[in-house]
Amino acid sequence: MKKTKQKVNAAIIIIGNEILSGRTQDVNVATISNWLNQLGVSLKEVRIVPDIEKVIIKTVKEMYKKFTYIFTTGGIGPTHDDITSKTISKAFNMSYGYHDEAYKLLEKYYSKKNFTSGRKKMAMMPRQAGLILNPSSGAPGFFVKNVYCLPGVPSILKSMLGGLENKIKGGKKILTKTISARTVESEIAKSLTKVQNKFTDIDIGSYPFFKQGRIGVSIVVRSTKKKKIDDCCKEIVSFLKKKEINILGKK
Amino acid sequence: MKKTKQKVNAAIIIIGNEILSGRTQDVNVATISNWLNQLGVSLKEVRIVPDIEKVIIKTVKEMYKKFTYIFTTGGIGPTHDDITSKTISKAFNMSYGYHDEAYKLLEKYYSKKNFTSGRKKMAMMPRQAGLILNPSSGAPGFFVKNVYCLPGVPSILKSMLGGLENKIKGGKKILTKTISARTVESEIAKSLTKVQNKFTDIDIGSYPFFKQGRIGVSIVVRSTKKKKIDDCCKEIVSFLKKKEINILGKK
Repeated sequence: MKKTKQKVNAAIIIIGNEILSGRTQDVNVATISNWLNQLGVSLKEVRIVPDIEKVIIKTVKEMYKKFTYIFTTGGIGPTHDDITSKTISKAFNMSYGYHDEAYKLLEKYYSKKNFTSGRKKMAMMPRQAGLILNPSSGAPGFFVKNVYCLPGVPSILKSMLGGLENKIKGGKKILTKTISARTVESEIAKSLTKVQNKFTDIDIGSYPFFKQGRIGVSIVVRSTKKKKIDDCCKEIVSFLKKKEINILGKK
Repeated sequence: MKKTKQKVNAAIIIIGNEILSGRTQDVNVATISNWLNQLGVSLKEVRIVPDIEKVIIKTVKEMYKKFTYIFTTGGIGPTHDDITSKTISKAFNMSYGYHDEAYKLLEKYYSKKNFTSGRKKMAMMPRQAGLILNPSSGAPGFFVKNVYCLPGVPSILKSMLGGLENKIKGGKKILTKTISARTVESEIAKSLTKVQNKFTDIDIGSYPFFKQGRIGVSIVVRSTKKKKIDDCCKEIVSFLKKKEINILGKK
């Protein structure tokens, strides 16, 4: 394989007891990952950690040097279990307090008389942080170094990604093709291995599905190179046809 | 706080490019976590890692000593991207090959003439592993040391948990009460902090919700001690009433 430039990558740290306890189903990983794919950034790891300061600090310190971008979700609200802002300040030895711009922004959002102490907490963060604007509910996220701190509520998180795009410098866009076929994995395993061994720099995944009484396998081909994906898919289609396996769809 | 015995805990390692790429929405964390709650095992961390041998080995080695139980999901099927069995063997310096019992079991499941080489791969694992039986699709999971390897397909994983229960020794069951109220977090933050400071060994979480035009906060109280949960909830209900906040539900 030819040497390529270091890929632009990312990791997510989900801060939230509610995900670990099984109470809440995370959906932010898929949202952030699909958004990163469009920007040419490859998500390489996710960690879900509890709302415990020393665990968060250890995780952030371990990860921010390993990946181009780190996204955290959760823990930037006004309640006692929202400890992300304070914890990130500690992790990077930054002063934690009212962030001038965030304070002004929230004061304006709520109007002076409704800007209660509970709400003021949402203006507390590393004072040198950059802000991530929140078009849906006022309270901004923030970033320090390569660590971008987003809220946990999926709809709010989603609304804030657009404003982040000019801060993320991606690589080549990651392209995907999926071939779905009426088969089982064991029937195609050998042929698929041959194709994978031929296209070493392409990522081929095989995922069985069972839905609404239908059984099949989705073969997912991912790369930044369109031509290689096309060549690889041609070989997959060719062995499926040879085996007389019904192709259900290509996209 | 009184010293308590070391809690029984667990971590999950999700092995799967399909989750990192955003193609597939993980649901196994919530399934396993809710099952563990019933057994009195507390889920403490989750990592989602790619199908890369050295990353998986590093992650497993780092985690199996830190937690009572480790569950892995994904990567035990028949295709080239299913590398969990081989990787776990390597991580623990165990011989990787046909597992006698798994081989017999699969041979019987498929009948001799349909037991193709693709299917035979699913009998390859650490040869000393214990098996986790699979009532829905034949191919078993396995465990070595405290590491339990399950498939990624949610319905199959779910069907295998029952058979695992006699192998997991839990602690006290983790109990939960949820109070939902028509409010916003900033309105209750201060009072909730006071309650949390009083009940230091109770885990109180605060989660805003916005659904179907309704806005509110769910306050989730978790502990192994029913009496403490009840006392704590009483204080929460009391401050909510004092603030004339409408309680939408308790469960």
